Formats: sequence, C-alpha cells, structure tokens
Amino acid sequence: MSLNPVIDMLGRRLRLAVIGGGTGSFIGAMHRQSARRDDRYQIVTGIFSSDPAKSKKDASELGFESDRIYSSVKELYEKESSRKDGIDAVAIMTPNDSHFDYSMWALERGIDVICDKPMTNTLEEAEALHKKVQETGLVFCLTHNYTGYPMVRQAKAMVEAGELGTIRLVQVEYVQGGKADENKVFPAGYWKFDPARGGPSLVMGDIGSHAHNLTRFITGLEVDEVSAEIGTIVPNRRVHDFGGAMLRFNNGARGSFWVTQAAAGVENCLRIRVSGTKGSLEWMQEIPQALTFKPLGAPSENRTPNGPGTLPLSARCTRLVAGHPEGFPMALQIFIPMPPKRLRRDVLANKQTR
Amino acid sequence: MSLNPVIDMLGRRLRLAVIGGGTGSFIGAMHRQSARRDDRYQIVTGIFSSDPAKSKKDASELGFESDRIYSSVKELYEKESSRKDGIDAVAIMTPNDSHFDYSMWALERGIDVICDKPMTNTLEEAEALHKKVQETGLVFCLTHNYTGYPMVRQAKAMVEAGELGTIRLVQVEYVQGGKADENKVFPAGYWKFDPARGGPSLVMGDIGSHAHNLTRFITGLEVDEVSAEIGTIVPNRRVHDFGGAMLRFNNGARGSFWVTQAAAGVENCLRIRVSGTKGSLEWMQEIPQALTFKPLGAPSENRTPNGPGTLPLSARCTRLVAGHPEGFPMALQIFIPMPPKRLRRDVLANKQTR
Amino acid sequence: MSLNPVIDMLGRRLRLAVIGGGTGSFIGAMHRQSARRDDRYQIVTGIFSSDPAKSKKDASELGFESDRIYSSVKELYEKESSRKDGIDAVAIMTPNDSHFDYSMWALERGIDVICDKPMTNTLEEAEALHKKVQETGLVFCLTHNYTGYPMVRQAKAMVEAGELGTIRLVQVEYVQGGKADENKVFPAGYWKFDPARGGPSLVMGDIGSHAHNLTRFITGLEVDEVSAEIGTIVPNRRVHDFGGAMLRFNNGARGSFWVTQAAAGVENCLRIRVSGTKGSLEWMQEIPQALTFKPLGAPSENRTPNGPGTLPLSARCTRLVAGHPEGFPMALQIFIPMPPKRLRRDVLANKQTR
Amino acid sequence: MSLNPVIDMLGRRLRLAVIGGGTGSFIGAMHRQSARRDDRYQIVTGIFSSDPAKSKKDASELGFESDRIYSSVKELYEKESSRKDGIDAVAIMTPNDSHFDYSMWALERGIDVICDKPMTNTLEEAEALHKKVQETGLVFCLTHNYTGYPMVRQAKAMVEAGELGTIRLVQVEYVQGGKADENKVFPAGYWKFDPARGGPSLVMGDIGSHAHNLTRFITGLEVDEVSAEIGTIVPNRRVHDFGGAMLRFNNGARGSFWVTQAAAGVENCLRIRVSGTKGSLEWMQEIPQALTFKPLGAPSENRTPNGPGTLPLSARCTRLVAGHPEGFPMALQIFIPMPPKRLRRDVLANKQTR
Repeated sequence: MSLNPVIDMLGRRLRLAVIGGGTGSFIGAMHRQSARRDDRYQIVTGIFSSDPAKSKKDASELGFESDRIYSSVKELYEKESSRKDGIDAVAIMTPNDSHFDYSMWALERGIDVICDKPMTNTLEEAEALHKKVQETGLVFCLTHNYTGYPMVRQAKAMVEAGELGTIRLVQVEYVQGGKADENKVFPAGYWKFDPARGGPSLVMGDIGSHAHNLTRFITGLEVDEVSAEIGTIVPNRRVHDFGGAMLRFNNGARGSFWVTQAAAGVENCLRIRVSGTKGSLEWMQEIPQALTFKPLGAPSENRTPNGPGTLPLSARCTRLVAGHPEGFPMALQIFIPMPPKRLRRDVLANKQTR
Repeated sequence: MSLNPVIDMLGRRLRLAVIGGGTGSFIGAMHRQSARRDDRYQIVTGIFSSDPAKSKKDASELGFESDRIYSSVKELYEKESSRKDGIDAVAIMTPNDSHFDYSMWALERGIDVICDKPMTNTLEEAEALHKKVQETGLVFCLTHNYTGYPMVRQAKAMVEAGELGTIRLVQVEYVQGGKADENKVFPAGYWKFDPARGGPSLVMGDIGSHAHNLTRFITGLEVDEVSAEIGTIVPNRRVHDFGGAMLRFNNGARGSFWVTQAAAGVENCLRIRVSGTKGSLEWMQEIPQALTFKPLGAPSENRTPNGPGTLPLSARCTRLVAGHPEGFPMALQIFIPMPPKRLRRDVLANKQTR
Repeated sequence: MSLNPVIDMLGRRLRLAVIGGGTGSFIGAMHRQSARRDDRYQIVTGIFSSDPAKSKKDASELGFESDRIYSSVKELYEKESSRKDGIDAVAIMTPNDSHFDYSMWALERGIDVICDKPMTNTLEEAEALHKKVQETGLVFCLTHNYTGYPMVRQAKAMVEAGELGTIRLVQVEYVQGGKADENKVFPAGYWKFDPARGGPSLVMGDIGSHAHNLTRFITGLEVDEVSAEIGTIVPNRRVHDFGGAMLRFNNGARGSFWVTQAAAGVENCLRIRVSGTKGSLEWMQEIPQALTFKPLGAPSENRTPNGPGTLPLSARCTRLVAGHPEGFPMALQIFIPMPPKRLRRDVLANKQTR
Repeated sequence: MSLNPVIDMLGRRLRLAVIGGGTGSFIGAMHRQSARRDDRYQIVTGIFSSDPAKSKKDASELGFESDRIYSSVKELYEKESSRKDGIDAVAIMTPNDSHFDYSMWALERGIDVICDKPMTNTLEEAEALHKKVQETGLVFCLTHNYTGYPMVRQAKAMVEAGELGTIRLVQVEYVQGGKADENKVFPAGYWKFDPARGGPSLVMGDIGSHAHNLTRFITGLEVDEVSAEIGTIVPNRRVHDFGGAMLRFNNGARGSFWVTQAAAGVENCLRIRVSGTKGSLEWMQEIPQALTFKPLGAPSENRTPNGPGTLPLSARCTRLVAGHPEGFPMALQIFIPMPPKRLRRDVLANKQTR
C-alpha cells in the first residue's frame, strides 16, 4: 500500500468542512483529529457555532483561508459547491434536531455527508434522508464510531468466519454515570435536556443507538421483537436516562439490552457478549484493546490488535504493532513540542526571513 | 484555549521534515500521525529511504510539492534552510548510527530536532550533541514517547505532589517477545542485528532506554549505582536480548530493572511499580488508561485519563472525556471513508470542475 | 473469640447428617468440607445414594460408626432422633423433588435443616415448609452460598451503611456454558433434564434463584414487578436454559436480570452491578476477592477481603489476612449456622436428653 | 476414588498434633482448617502457646480430651509416642528459632513432621534435619503452600510436558506492604523483628523462601549463581525488608528476583513469569485462579482450575468445577500428605502397636 492511498487515487487530499464542534466541544476535536490522522482529508472550512462571530473566531484560529470563512451552513454549502476546489464532504456534529436539514442540504448540493448519530429525531426524517442518499448515489456515513475499534472489527470478522457457530444469545449494555448526579449544574438551555432539540429519548439517541448498532454490526442479526421499558430515574429531568429491553433476533437468538446515563461513578462501560454454538466473545469499550474469545471446550483466549489470529477486517483498521494500544501515537504526539520562543508571532513579525 | 494555539502563536503551523519512516515502517506512520493530530505541524518534505528513488516515490505519495523533494538529508537541510518558508524542525527516525550526523547537521543549520531514541550510539556523540544544543539554544527532543501517556504524566504529577511520600522502591520491566523466535527470518542485513548500526546493545537501545527514562521521568530520581548483567539468550545472535540490574537511586531508594526481547509470546509489557512511604503506583503500557494507586491504609484506586483526581500535567496531554480510551478518535477515524468512485483521479482527469 | 466457639458453647461439636452428595458429586464434597472447616460440626452419618448398597459403601468410607449406617432417609431420621447422641442437623443435597419431603420429615423429628436451593419444586410446598419452620421454631437454612463471599457481605454492608445512597439501578447476570453443548452426553435419566424431578425451570432453579437472592441480599430491596421471557435455546431439551427479565423494585429502582446455561465457553459468571445516588458497586463471582466501588466524583476503589474499609459483616466471614483470596467452599461454610439456643451449654446442662 | 481414601487405607483418620497457632494467629487457623478439609486428619492435641496456662485454655476450647492436654512440646511428644492411639504427625507453626528442636525431637520419637517455612535459622541445622530425615525414613514436609494452588501445579505440569520448550527467562517477585509503615506499632518483643528468633533475614525467611521455592517448583531448575543485595529500607528496623537478585540457572537461563515487605499499600503480590522457547506463563497469587499462557505465535490463553487443558497434577489438587475459585487454606491443605506406607491398613494389621 502506498503511504497515502488517497493522494495516490485523487492526486490530492479530500476537502472537508466541519459543522459544529467549536471551543469546548469534545466531539469536535475528535472529528478533526480523526480526519487528519491518516492525512487523507484537508479541513478547509467550517461553521463552529450558531453565533457567527464565535464561529468566525474559531475558523480563523484553525487557519482557514479568509475567503472560506462563512456566516451560515447554507452559505458554506452554496459557496463551496460553486468553487472549483470546493469541499468533497461535510462532517456534521451539531445538535440532533439540525442533522436532517444540514444533511439534506448537503446531499442536494452533491456533497458527501459524515453525520453524527443519531441520524435524525424522527423516523420520517431518517427515511427521507435514506431515500435522498439512494437517489443521489452520494456517501452518507453515520458515526457509529465504536465499530471502528480493531477488536470490534475482529469480533465481527470472527462471527462472519463462523468461529462462533450460530449466534444464540447476545448481551449488550452501555452504562454511563455522567448524568447521574442530580445536583450537577448543566449549562442553561443545554440542548440534550430539551426533547425538542435532543430528540424524544436522550439515552436512546446518545448511547442506545450505539448499543443497538454494535449488536447488529458484530452479529449481522436484526432485532425482530422487543419488550422494553424506557424511562427516567434522576428526578426533575424531562428526558430518558435508562432503557432496558429483551430482544428476539431474526434467527431466533435472544438478547438482553441495558443502557443508562444514571449509574453514578461508572465512566463509559459499553460492553457486549455474543454467544454462539461454538463459543462466546466478550468486549468492553473501557479496555478496547482486549477481546476475549471463549471457545467451547478449549481455554479462553485474549485477542489483541494485530495479535495472532487477527483477521483482515480488523488488521485494516489499525496501524499498530501488537502490544501497542491505540493510544500509542497520542503518547508520541504529546512529545512534539509547542513552538519555541524564537518562532512566536511577534518575533516573526520583526524578522521576515529565518 | 484556542482551537489551535500554534496558529494563534505563529499565524501558521510549524513546518516539519521527516527523515526515515517510509513504506513498511511502523514508527514512520506513528510520527506522521502524531505530528498531524492537533494540526500544529505541516509536514512539508522528507527523506524516506537511503535509496533516492524509493524516497522520492514515497514523498510524492505524501503529496509534497515537487520543489521540496530531495535526494539526500544534506540537500534537504541546505535547501530548506535557505527558503523563506523553510522547515522549522526535523523528525529523525533512521537507524541509530545516523542519529548523530542528522541531528548535528540540523542544529548547525538552525533547525530544531525531534530524534528517535536512542540518542546516539556512543556517549561521546551524545555529549557532543548536548553541547551543540546548549550553544545554539535550539530545541532537541528525544522521543521517549511512553512518557506521553496521560497516566504516566499523572504518576509523575502524583509523585511531585508528594502523594507517595519519599520514594523507597522502584521496579521497572520492559518485556517483549518479538525477537524470541530463533527460527523467525528477519530481512537480510537487518540493521538492528548489526551492532555497528544498531549500537552496542540492541535491548538497551531499543527498550532499556525507555525503561530507564520512564523511571527517571516518574520518580525524578537518578540512578547512582548499578549491578547488572546484559547478555544474549537466543542462539546465533550478535546483539543483546536481555538485561537485568539492581539499582541504587540518589536518595537511597532501591530498584529492580529487567528488559528483554526474548520472552516468547509476550507482546509489549512495559510495567513500573513505584513505592514511597505513603503508597505505591502501578502502571502497565498494555493497558495504558489504567493507573493503580495503592495508598497506605486505604483502598487501592483506579485512576483514569481525565477521571477524578486528574492533575494538570496529565489533563494537558489528553483531549478525551473520562472513560474514553486514547484509541477513541482512531476508532472514529476508521469510520471516515475512502474517496468515492466519482472522485477518483481518472474521473477527475476528465472533469475539471465539479 | 475462642478458638472454637461451638465447643465453647456446647461442650461438643454439632452432629450433622448428610443426605446426598456421594461419589461423583461436586456439591457433596463442598458441603462436607464446609461443615468441617471451622471444626464446628462432626458429620456422624449420611445417606449418599438412593441405592442402599452404594450409600453404605460411601458411609463406610467416610468412617461412620457401624450402628449409624442406615438404609433410608426415614430410618436415619427415626433412629438418630431416638439416640442420646443423635444428630442436631441434616444437610440435604438431593434432587430438587425430594427437598420437600426430606426437609419436612426432619423438621417433624425436631432436626434442624440445611437444604440446597431451590427450596422446593412448587410454591405450595415452599409455603408449607415455611409454615412448619415457624411452628417448630427450628432452623431452616437454604444454601444461597454466594452470599457467603466476604465481598458480597461487604457490598451488602456498604449499601446498609448508606455508602451508595438510594439504590436506583441493578444489573444481575448469571451466565454459564456447562449445558451449551448440544452434543455433550449427559447420564441417562439425568434428573436435571427431567422437569418432574428438577422442577419446572432448570435455569431458574439452578442459577436464577442465586441471581435473585444475590440481588435481594445486597440491596435489601424486593422485586415488585417483572416482565420476563424464560425459554430454551439448545435444541432437544425439555427444560429451560435461559431467562431474561426487566425488574421494578419496591423503591422504584429498575433492574435487568439475565441467566443462562447455554453460553458456550463461559464458565461461571455470576455478576452484579448496583448503582445508587452516591455511587456504584460491581462484583463478579469468578474473581470473588475483588469488589469495585465507584463513588460519584471520586476515583473507583478496589475493595478486598479484610482490606482497608472492610465492614464488620464482611470481616466476620473471612479468616484471612488481606491479599489472601478466599474459596468457594469457604463461602458455603459461612452459611452453616451457629448452634441455636436450645442446644447451648447452659440449656443442655438442665436437660440431659433431647 | 473413595470418598475418604485415608479411612479407606487406615481404617481411621491420621492423628495430628499442632504446635503453635493459638488465639490471634492467622496461620494456626489456616493449618487447622486445611488439616480438616478433606477429613483425613483428626487433630487430637496441641501446644498453642509457650505460656502453659494459655495453651491449655486453647486446647480445651478445641475440644481435646483431658488426658491429651500437655504443658510442653517435649511432654506432648513423650506421652503421645507411648500411647497406642498416639499422634501420627505434628504440625509446627512456631517462631523460626524453634523449628529445629521441635522437628528433631519429633523425628527422634518416630513422628512425621509438617513444618512451617523457613526450615531452620541456619544452614547447619537444616542439614542436620535433612540427615535425620534420611536416617529415619520419616516424612518431613515444609509448608511452601503456594505450590498447592491448582494453577501453580498446572504451570509446573505444563513446563514438565514441554509446552514452554526450554526455559530461558524467569522473573519472580514477592511484594508486600504489611511492614511498610514505620509508624505502625507492633507488639513489644515481636519475634519477627528479633534476628535471633526470626532468623538472619526477615524478608528472605518470610517471603523470599516462597519466591525461591516457587521458581524451583515450576521450572524444575536450580539457581547456580546469584548477584544480590539484601537490606533494610524502613528506618529503625534491625531486620531486612527487601532483597533483589539476578539469577543464573543451571541450564543457562537468567532470572530476576525481587522481594520486599516495605511496599506501602501493596497487599500480597507473589508473581512469576516463566519464558521458554515456545511461550511464557504468568501467575499472580492475588488472583490465583488465573494462569496466563502466552504461546509463541498464537493468542494468549487464560487457564483456570479444572478448565480445558488442565493436566493431572493440577486436577488432583482441586475439588472444584471450573469457574469456581479456590482459596488459600485449600492450597495449604493440598500440602498435607497422604499416609506413609508404614501406617497403611495391611501394615497395621500385622503390627498392633506403633
């Protein structure tokens, strides 16, 4: 493989705009890092806030060219789609109620879309988007990012290769504590606590969608029947913070589903166990480099990224040598220093040449 | 903090050249990803191979401008240092015997250096480099990258804050199995197995230097006295593959040191335990998001990146919310797709506008 | 405390008979070890098989006196209850359909009962036994042995002490793989696969009862409402092998319940997470010496038997110094009760015969 | 196998005396539990304290017959060895300086010995005891109890079966924190802090002996050469609290050895890694039910007591079904030997007196 297959294919990087993810956003930094990681994307513009002034300040700090700094999403799409070097794709990481419009407008302009989950706040909107994607033939990606972990891909590949036999039982849970403290003060008007903006069920949109997706991704099965209770545990909250369900899959397998953001002290425990006729797999997001395979009648095994037995689907999504967790290049990055004094802006202003 | 403090400071990204790390290299991809992660560097040129043709092919695939593709390190330094938009820094990831020359030449041209460990193959060279750095006032970074993990920084910060009391005992080990198999075929002329190129002691240069550095970094102590055996376990090998030592630190603490690349089946176990009068800390690179603190007379604690009790030195080196391992953005990145067909080079060639 | 509080109280050990648990039985050996562990019981007789010859052989090998070797449970109860040195208690570890008769007959003879779970095969029988116990004032112990682990007792004690605040969410699972293999050959007429003998639901009687009990024991809550599916996954089986449920507790807390014996490759994963307003607790039977406490807003803690923070309820059920793990039969042993008042030394002094 | 092979062989249990281990002793309770666990021993007498009154009180509480309560070890040996139903064996758990006399006197009276480690305080005494054991043909057991854990036996069996290939590297550590706190008040005259009673090196006698024994037991190798530092870290202490060594084994393998009781906050971390040409094994006492096998070129495996792949040496020392963890006193119990030939039923038949 070449060092940069995108440049090899296109003669250039893909040009990306980002919508949302400004100062103070966690997922914004994640998107930008992820886009840059393999140097396949160049982020050329973005709208970082619904406040145009704040957005322009962020855009300037990210070093965008001045003629690519826009006041609104619509303006961005219009102007970029008329440039010869306009964006190829847009990454949308705004409150849920805007996903539909921002995606639809992009598709209408011929722009590929990378959209944060949940797709939309209503089924009707989701189906309309789906139809538009089919009509246009454009790319629409939903960031069910946990399926990008090498060991999740390994799990899927092992199921596909028949190493588990027929799937019989699935347990999935996504348990967080970040919204457990009823005394914690969230920003006034926090959109996630507003059902009109965050959607009908906070816990299902925020993390239930990941749990459901992870189950489908690894097993290849669809949920056919559900018995569920979705509700609210923490007092004085207008949105759901837990959901439990029993599942029947389309091959007859049975499942358990449990998601909550009200489990005080738990950090981010997305966990799955899949059992088939020939063995079980266990994975937990908090130690994502570990996949446990428990074959029927043989010792259980610890599978690791690029370790022995890695299947191609998994190998393709890590750049690492076995034993080096995915955080390895981030630790290396910490090492790379901030600019020394002699290069600072004020010094440079007085000294045009080196 | 601004979204990009480097652009904020300089009005532009730092300009970086990379030496080494071409096709097939693990550390090359790591360096490039790390440089790009926070968008503080722009990699503008590089020499990827001692074979000029191979180097130029790699440089072209990385999308460098044609007037920045060079035939040799010397040419690169000369031409870049005379450009107005020349490189600020060079990252060196070549065989160990070239570190001295490539670093020295860069410093002589006023270029900051990011150099892979070990620094040089002899103490004399290291001291000459050190003297040059002091004379020039330039930046010289050695990539002891494991100290960039958030929980290693947390460990250092806890020691500095006195949470362990006076350090008494240190155990450090770096155990790998990658060179354990005597039947494994390495490339002919593999430089690591050539003492003239890889240096006098493979295991000490490759991983012993990390173990020693990690100890100093976390404890702030220096090793005063050593009783050691360094040698070779795997037959027919001209380089060292294990080293053991007992250590006496400059505050009277005692230590155990054990490094080997001959432990069949072990992946990459860099592990440290530091004990002081008030408690012990334990960390292992294979699960880098976990730091265990065992205080005297109280339950042991699991510290996590950005979890409760995170100290500023640690917080500064992660971008993540607690419960999301450092691999989180890489999993997200996997999600971002390769270019769709309509954008491929051959298609673009026939269609200049979108 | 004296070295043997039973001898201190009675002037002798308690005299125990065992029913069931002969050659080839796992639980039989566990019972006998547990009875002996603290030297508070002397096993003086037993019926080990419904085949009198086999039973007598086992009894002889255990060293019972010849005049205490019996042909039937009824005979044992009759003759022992008329001896001056007759048994104080009987431990019953026979197939489930015999629990009711063997317990009832013992209670009718004034003998205390230690009975394996499930109590009986029908609710009516259980209620009749309960009534008899209340009438007679005798001791009736059901061996929910997992509650004897020191860290389960610690969990209960922490909940009682208010360290978790108000309980909001409970997840309990008991997942085994021992009956997952549809090709495994079980003994002909194996009673567990016969609903008439093993009861209406194998998985609920075998392990569901433990999961339910563990939840009640730790939380002190009762299940008020249930939505459940209980069924069979492995083909050609007449008994249940999985059960899932959503729970509503009597304080409004919500719960998830999942038990199965059909998870290929899993050994014996009984696991519970309890979340309250102030933090969460996590425990797993496969590493019973570890209890994780995740307080709201502070680092998670690893609690260990007799380690820092151990509460009296937990301390009382281990004989060990911190760092020395406990074992399963010790947990069972904890269950075996102290002598009831009517047998205490001062009572006996005034009443030479039973 | 019969339910009680000792009764099967002898027609009775073995008769045991215990010396030491009275009220307040941890190891005393462990010995007594372990002796009783499989009902192969009957503890008939003991001396629990050097204070005769205290000893008699303990003996009485343990329910010994009044004519078997003695004032001194010598009296116990004399009177027991002249009884027809006298003791078969003695278990010695007294301060180290008494091990030699109490063992020697027992051997001189024809009594088998189970002695706590370390064997004696001097090499001369150890050699004298060894000579006496050879002359008498009696049994002398030293309680290196950690080798009784099922997974330690499994490790030894896997090495013996060649599953690791030729052993190349061994790391062993035994790290405790119980004596780390310099402010902790120990009982006045505590024998372990008195070199004359506890022996020349507290840390080596207490735990170094276990670490050394564990290494020999699993690998079957002997240490040929040592470079070591043994010393004292905690101020104001007359005995050693840490020891480090580099080892050369008799097959050329290299090793690292580290023991300390001064690691604040650590509980009881006895840990070993053994690497051979074909793979590595890792075990840690704090989770004794887990043995990790890391084969060259295949996924690492988790071995469990009686789990898949269990070898006979390991299977023989657990009574448990896979997934049910073992405990410390069970490991000790494994140590208590089967009856020697001279006591077997057929021998006794021809020889009514001892």
